[in-house]
Amino acid sequence: MADKKIPYKIYLEESEMPRAWYNLRADMKNKPAPLLNPATMKPMTAEDLSVVFCEELVKQELDETNAYYEIPEEIRDFYKMYRPSPLVRAYCLEEKLQTPAKIYYKFEGNNTSGSHKLNSAIAQAYYAKKQGLVGVTTETGAGQWGTALSMACSYFGLDCKVYMVKCSYEQKPHRREVMRTYGASVTPSPSMETSVGRKILAEHPGTTGSLGCAISEAVEKATNTEGYRYVLGSVLNQVMLHQSVIGLETKIALDKYDIKPDIIIGCAGGGSNLGGLIAPFMGEKIRGEADYRIIAVEPSSCPSLTRGVYAYDYCDTGMVCPLAKMYTLGSGFIPAANHAGGLRYHGMSSTLSQLYDDKLMEAVSVAQTEVFAAAEQFARVEGILPAPESSHAIKIAIDEAMRCKETGEEKTIVFGLTGTGYFDMYAYEKFHDGKMENYVPTDEELAVALAKLPKVEG
Amino acid sequence: MADKKIPYKIYLEESEMPRAWYNLRADMKNKPAPLLNPATMKPMTAEDLSVVFCEELVKQELDETNAYYEIPEEIRDFYKMYRPSPLVRAYCLEEKLQTPAKIYYKFEGNNTSGSHKLNSAIAQAYYAKKQGLVGVTTETGAGQWGTALSMACSYFGLDCKVYMVKCSYEQKPHRREVMRTYGASVTPSPSMETSVGRKILAEHPGTTGSLGCAISEAVEKATNTEGYRYVLGSVLNQVMLHQSVIGLETKIALDKYDIKPDIIIGCAGGGSNLGGLIAPFMGEKIRGEADYRIIAVEPSSCPSLTRGVYAYDYCDTGMVCPLAKMYTLGSGFIPAANHAGGLRYHGMSSTLSQLYDDKLMEAVSVAQTEVFAAAEQFARVEGILPAPESSHAIKIAIDEAMRCKETGEEKTIVFGLTGTGYFDMYAYEKFHDGKMENYVPTDEELAVALAKLPKVEG
Repeated sequence: MADKKIPYKIYLEESEMPRAWYNLRADMKNKPAPLLNPATMKPMTAEDLSVVFCEELVKQELDETNAYYEIPEEIRDFYKMYRPSPLVRAYCLEEKLQTPAKIYYKFEGNNTSGSHKLNSAIAQAYYAKKQGLVGVTTETGAGQWGTALSMACSYFGLDCKVYMVKCSYEQKPHRREVMRTYGASVTPSPSMETSVGRKILAEHPGTTGSLGCAISEAVEKATNTEGYRYVLGSVLNQVMLHQSVIGLETKIALDKYDIKPDIIIGCAGGGSNLGGLIAPFMGEKIRGEADYRIIAVEPSSCPSLTRGVYAYDYCDTGMVCPLAKMYTLGSGFIPAANHAGGLRYHGMSSTLSQLYDDKLMEAVSVAQTEVFAAAEQFARVEGILPAPESSHAIKIAIDEAMRCKETGEEKTIVFGLTGTGYFDMYAYEKFHDGKMENYVPTDEELAVALAKLPKVEG
Repeated sequence: MADKKIPYKIYLEESEMPRAWYNLRADMKNKPAPLLNPATMKPMTAEDLSVVFCEELVKQELDETNAYYEIPEEIRDFYKMYRPSPLVRAYCLEEKLQTPAKIYYKFEGNNTSGSHKLNSAIAQAYYAKKQGLVGVTTETGAGQWGTALSMACSYFGLDCKVYMVKCSYEQKPHRREVMRTYGASVTPSPSMETSVGRKILAEHPGTTGSLGCAISEAVEKATNTEGYRYVLGSVLNQVMLHQSVIGLETKIALDKYDIKPDIIIGCAGGGSNLGGLIAPFMGEKIRGEADYRIIAVEPSSCPSLTRGVYAYDYCDTGMVCPLAKMYTLGSGFIPAANHAGGLRYHGMSSTLSQLYDDKLMEAVSVAQTEVFAAAEQFARVEGILPAPESSHAIKIAIDEAMRCKETGEEKTIVFGLTGTGYFDMYAYEKFHDGKMENYVPTDEELAVALAKLPKVEG
């Protein structure tokens, strides 16, 4: 049905790859609200931040002015090992759906970390190395971020200490081994290595941990250890900046073939992938140069944009990290079990939150059985076995393509395929066996967590 | 150190992809010996073979004359979903080794089956569909071939029945789930579904199965079920033909940048990857147009080329399949546990066996701890987490590069990186924990299995 003048996969030449990241905040009319210091409730200063983060990254975190940051050559060299990532024309999916829509996806899963996380991991490791640090600490849940950081640190010869949520450490030994292959030390959290870990273990001897606790341990370790800093894989402005490489490559590839997307779709947990994918397109939209429908997709079990409130809240469950103004379900909200571990976050990047509040993008939530059905349908025709997180975007892309079939519109849909599901087969098994459940929090449950939001003036 | 005029990854344009497979046998002076019918000990005829295999594949299996087979458009379209695969310049590995050698690898792991197996699976599924069959049967051990075939069958809407060696079925539930995602039915072997399975279960109630038994079940199921045929992922001539796409792409990419390899290296189990990678280069060598050192790498626990004999033997442990003249350790040889499951085969493709016997290629064997050490070293600098099978080639590529460092020679080394190790983390864990063993069969052990070789005249 399609004429196939566009290749199945558009790969840029190395010489066409972006040489600078794009800082969307520079073009935003309403800037995202600043992080607040939890001790003083005043905006975090560079000094406050540099206790925890590398200096160069602090600069990027606070910069609302410069639209472009040159990507250092060392990072561009690393990018060349797994980038440019392909922009794929989903001919087979279009044929299967018999839709007049043209579907493209930017596939970020062709690297060992299995996701887009490596784009920021290598940048954060580079600046740590440049500052002469010995190593970095971080937390990981499902393990994608921890794997990406392990790879990046191994490349630059940095030590990497990963606190892995204990239940994941035990349930996902294979992810742990990938990190060990790259030389990282992986500690199940809570651990006896930190005072916060010891405290939690004393209070809750049988706990299997949480992301909030692992963050607290990683931050404590970094601030208490000479030559170490803490790094984070999502939510932060610096991460959005690095991930803009996804959107920039996508735009260069589309422009090369004179393709104008109508709809851009991405899954949203903390926002790193969606923020990166949409950055240059949203820039055009804000500057009035083009118009796009931009859709964030989140799990109905953790619906921060669609059912949360826009307010200052703690970024972590342990309430030791700065506060961010964002769409949140409350830092005390514990999302129900969902196999898209990367989307189980109570909040949302403050940049994306501001854009959503300004009605520059839409948001929808979907149930996980629908997501896995879409994932399986996609895998069978497009070959790639998608990660549960990425499959949220697939589900909505298929819905939009089917809408085109009804109306006969030949819309161009671009979505972000953030990663592969090789380490998620347990979830697929539950789906195949009909044992997967959907959980949607009640209004009462949401109200309980939201009632505990911190009181912040202004 | 390197000037980096060659890109990190050479991707061909879709228009540059091979349009025909190359049948190396057409150029071989000494042709590989024919398969023998186990009932008559006479060469298998097309009629004999078509009970088990599709007609078009039988034709390919027996054809020693035609050098090229046009790749049908439907297969070329499928190839475009995951091919061309990149030819990667290993700049980071070269730098790490401080070698003057130039190292390239053809990476076949960027698809969901995680290996090159998909290149033949899609061809075999296509011809089955074209013949109007309902489905196909096969066996799988580690699961890569079964996964590839599941993907191919799902694409063409064919039923796919996979007999998976029971111990793998239980130890590798994730591979099993990938196959189920693609709609295949996966049965632990031995099963009660076939008479051979029932017989084995009656005789050995606690058995965890073997590849030989799974082959027998798959063949029985195919021959007893209307509209089904059996397919095999390695060893056969037809498989070598399809896999020639690896070598053809490699050669086109090298020629594009005017690069002449000195050494070509591949791992060898049944020979599908090595045979495919070297095909066009070996053709030039046979025709006297160029010279290359070509090296097959096998595990020292299953050293068919380096310690086997060149003789007619059964292709399967159950002795129901045809006999092939090949380098073999004896069909009764049970290789010791080795994590490179894809290399645990007692024999070798008869094409590669003939080439080796004609001294057109070399062979070496390596111990698995050396292989995993090389795998880890490679992963840390090149990013890709290699499969244990592929890592055999990495090990010898590194050895050759280090030899160049000693001599100062700027040799160009090309090796086949057949796949990724995402489903092999248990093996990596054993390696990290120092619990991996090397096993080398004694001469006495080999003699016992070789004493049972069938007596074949001529």
